[in-house]
Amino acid sequence: MGKGLLITFEGLDGCGKSLMMRKLGKWLRTRGCSVETTCEPGWGEMGQSIRKLLLNSAFGSVDERTEALLYAADRANHCAAFIRPQLEAGKIILCDRFFDSTLAYQGFGRGLDLDSLLALQNFAIGSVRPDLTIFLRVPVEVSFSRIRGKKDRLEQEDKEFFERVLAGYDKLAAREPNRFRVIDSGGPIDQVFSTVVKAILPLLKG
Amino acid sequence: MGKGLLITFEGLDGCGKSLMMRKLGKWLRTRGCSVETTCEPGWGEMGQSIRKLLLNSAFGSVDERTEALLYAADRANHCAAFIRPQLEAGKIILCDRFFDSTLAYQGFGRGLDLDSLLALQNFAIGSVRPDLTIFLRVPVEVSFSRIRGKKDRLEQEDKEFFERVLAGYDKLAAREPNRFRVIDSGGPIDQVFSTVVKAILPLLKG
Repeated sequence: MGKGLLITFEGLDGCGKSLMMRKLGKWLRTRGCSVETTCEPGWGEMGQSIRKLLLNSAFGSVDERTEALLYAADRANHCAAFIRPQLEAGKIILCDRFFDSTLAYQGFGRGLDLDSLLALQNFAIGSVRPDLTIFLRVPVEVSFSRIRGKKDRLEQEDKEFFERVLAGYDKLAAREPNRFRVIDSGGPIDQVFSTVVKAILPLLKG
Repeated sequence: MGKGLLITFEGLDGCGKSLMMRKLGKWLRTRGCSVETTCEPGWGEMGQSIRKLLLNSAFGSVDERTEALLYAADRANHCAAFIRPQLEAGKIILCDRFFDSTLAYQGFGRGLDLDSLLALQNFAIGSVRPDLTIFLRVPVEVSFSRIRGKKDRLEQEDKEFFERVLAGYDKLAAREPNRFRVIDSGGPIDQVFSTVVKAILPLLKG
């Protein structure tokens, strides 16, 4: 496999990313693959500090450009300190959220200019590119019902916002059909997982 | 004056920015102007938290893209929460370092791609633009001799780095002669200050 693989997982909160990553990680390891699972935002000490700035409300409402730049800083740190060296070491990296989250939430969700956001992402990630992006698709109502009770800043936003995010993911997936796999994540876990495995098999044969 | 004025001060550490800003602020106030002085990085609670991330070395060396994005996040917050509303209130803002510092230090100094950095800055500042930029120019040796004893992460870098930064400022000033005033800041304080006053007079007459 040589240079490693970066597989990113995207979708609304509650869409099953964590569970599918855990199951896929286990499945890959039993087949002898060297796997690392990671997530954004908040990798490492730097990322944890940035995440605190983003999630707590001590500063009142965070300006949307500041927010996008902080997410990008977290991503740049994650790529430089973890993802790039792990890819060079030949690892398979499963990453919970990557730049598509920024495009979906800050771009389509909040209405920040997509081209500017894309330029930010390209600056942040440098040469790192996902080999495959698994979009676990659930309707907004399913996402809400699964995360009910948990609250942070983003999850207080309204339903219309998440509908825009979901539609944004659909557009991103349509633009890059080679990189994206859109998987209906509303059904039984085993069925979703078997679709995820089918999606990554071609990469393993490479 | 209506919409306010943003006057930024640039140059190597020890070039006299703080002193000239204090003197100019006093001079403007005695003439009835409403003045705010501010600085980057580190405005407000958010900025202070970002500044801590940039200056302390708890995380080891900070990746240069992460660093540039954190500076941009600090700037976006500064513009949104302070500079823009103060300009709209008609204030004269004197700002110690602004986006030219990023271009000079991270671009010319560290060699990050200038066009990408410029795109970052434009994203961060939105509609805010300096009306005038005072570049207080001192040779690297003078900067070093004035700040000797103080140490933070940037100031441990080598002389060649600061020579590139200084040459970078010269290039930025040459590109935008209408916005920049290059002032020799190696001479007597009163002489430097009188040149600074001459530079801002045309704006006050407007």
